[in-house]
Amino acid sequence: MPRTTDIVRSGVERIVSDEPNLSCPVPFARYDRVVLAHGGGGRTMHALIDGVFARILANPELDTARDGAVLDFAGRVAITTDAFTVSPLFFPGGDIGRLAVCGTVNDVAMCGAEPKYLTAAFVLEEGLPLSDLERIVHSMADAAREAGVVVVTGDTKVVERGKGDGVFITTTGVGHCRGDVRVGPPLIRPGDAIVVSGPVGDHGMAVLSVREGLEHETPLTSDVAPVAGAVMALFDAGVDVRCLRDPTRGGLATALCELSQAAQSSFRIREMDVPVRAEVADACELLGLDPMYVACEGRFVVVVGAADADQAVRVLHGAGCAEACAIGCVADQRGPVIVDSPLGGERVLDMLSGEQLPRIC
Amino acid sequence: MPRTTDIVRSGVERIVSDEPNLSCPVPFARYDRVVLAHGGGGRTMHALIDGVFARILANPELDTARDGAVLDFAGRVAITTDAFTVSPLFFPGGDIGRLAVCGTVNDVAMCGAEPKYLTAAFVLEEGLPLSDLERIVHSMADAAREAGVVVVTGDTKVVERGKGDGVFITTTGVGHCRGDVRVGPPLIRPGDAIVVSGPVGDHGMAVLSVREGLEHETPLTSDVAPVAGAVMALFDAGVDVRCLRDPTRGGLATALCELSQAAQSSFRIREMDVPVRAEVADACELLGLDPMYVACEGRFVVVVGAADADQAVRVLHGAGCAEACAIGCVADQRGPVIVDSPLGGERVLDMLSGEQLPRIC
Repeated sequence: MPRTTDIVRSGVERIVSDEPNLSCPVPFARYDRVVLAHGGGGRTMHALIDGVFARILANPELDTARDGAVLDFAGRVAITTDAFTVSPLFFPGGDIGRLAVCGTVNDVAMCGAEPKYLTAAFVLEEGLPLSDLERIVHSMADAAREAGVVVVTGDTKVVERGKGDGVFITTTGVGHCRGDVRVGPPLIRPGDAIVVSGPVGDHGMAVLSVREGLEHETPLTSDVAPVAGAVMALFDAGVDVRCLRDPTRGGLATALCELSQAAQSSFRIREMDVPVRAEVADACELLGLDPMYVACEGRFVVVVGAADADQAVRVLHGAGCAEACAIGCVADQRGPVIVDSPLGGERVLDMLSGEQLPRIC
Repeated sequence: MPRTTDIVRSGVERIVSDEPNLSCPVPFARYDRVVLAHGGGGRTMHALIDGVFARILANPELDTARDGAVLDFAGRVAITTDAFTVSPLFFPGGDIGRLAVCGTVNDVAMCGAEPKYLTAAFVLEEGLPLSDLERIVHSMADAAREAGVVVVTGDTKVVERGKGDGVFITTTGVGHCRGDVRVGPPLIRPGDAIVVSGPVGDHGMAVLSVREGLEHETPLTSDVAPVAGAVMALFDAGVDVRCLRDPTRGGLATALCELSQAAQSSFRIREMDVPVRAEVADACELLGLDPMYVACEGRFVVVVGAADADQAVRVLHGAGCAEACAIGCVADQRGPVIVDSPLGGERVLDMLSGEQLPRIC
């Protein structure tokens, strides 16, 4: 008798039937949508795990016959976790699967560490088309390859229709810290330069555009991507990196406010130097949003020693961040983030206080 | 001006008002329920994180000002992840918080590793009473202390009313493997003894009893608890441990089927030796359920060398597992799990094929 995985691997066409086929060793193949039994711990769940997760995410570390993975480590290890609840599940430039890999991999990179492993836990809503789940898991596999990580263990739960929203994915990322690398707000010094790796607000506006049915001449596309390669390029080049932060929920403004508060230093930002794509700026104006508060998922802010600002920008340009630029510097006193406007005025940049864009990640 | 955390720490009574108090530096204190802004990345989310998570889960490793934690490791590290969607959130003997800690800590222990760190990601439904969330997080803190682990990093997302179900929690656990410990189905040998650490089915029946409004003379109480201490006691005593598995979803039957398949060996189980509490057996009979398929959350199955069976049971008795006992052995051929019934018959134990009890973990 062929093993479950052999059948699923060899069969591109799926057997879909309302009549349970009792001789069929692959209960997964009987369904085209998620059912409660897919989370029940029995044969149907094992068939889903073999047929979707194990097959698509296959790698030597992933052993779905056990509830965990054993990995070899030495030294300092960074660990981060993030739940992803983006709505809709698919948006221009990505989907919840790509987001769940990149978001967590990027958080590991923000610790100054090289991402190596991911875990993934799925909360599926009864009725989710299995074709959507497969598409999402394929997207995770692609993003994981791009980011140089492997998914080593996972979990699947199913909730009744109306108790979830398609799929929520929680990923946890683990990475090796380089021996001598230390980063964090306490290392920020007056005079340091503040560099952003690319235009801000793309992700939030891309998600919002599908959700609100907005149409633009130039389509809005999410920037969701792994940034660890660009971060490692900075370390490889010997740039004096003080601190890293990815401007996700709350956008660049919130990231800068958090860093300034944690570093107990005022930041001075030149608004005209903050890169924003024309189509993002237009859409923001239409909706009364400030792009400084709109989430990115493939950008990061890096604070570097003043003398290394130009080199940092050059290294980023060479590492795929063509629009990276310096946007300001760290002042020599405590205080808030001050933005110098193109017209000569200045304003205090505050942290987002309510909810601007729910469920963009 | 007092810091957010000072106010929250000192104030037992919460300021709850419909009028936003604009001079109040604690936006968290304005709400008695979860609102979308609690997941927005701005001030309101930071207030929730400071006011609930950072305060209740406080430990030296937890730095909520960054999106990750950096830990020191050497050698082999076990990592596991689990999403928890139990319904209802509170049940006799525990709640989703205790479950989310114990479930993952136990999976780490099942890898033969000593649990050290946890991450926790929350998907909150708009409208969840903050008092429920606090109770759950307190329960996590208590369970973490009991299990000897600390929560090192986390994440919070909020979904609209009707798109979730109160709270889902995904925890990831990390633990140190002892230098010489190797466990897993490939190490199982013919003649090995199969030991269970206590009565089975308590957790599933406790959750079901609240959900279905069942009343029993003796109340059904979940067994949810960390088992790592008992597992480590086996290693400390030098017991020849071959393999460990916790019988959660799908119960003891599914755990035995998985191990037997992975080990490519038939198991022989003495049904009359499998411990089941009288009240659990009664409730199962009433509902037409087989306790062998009902989930535990504080028990484990351990396969040990034949010569070590008695010692394993003695060590478990001394480590808080008063009802641990040997229930069978590994046969010297391939095949399924065979159960010898008290009346002299035998039957093949099969993996759960549908969904018996949805959302018990």
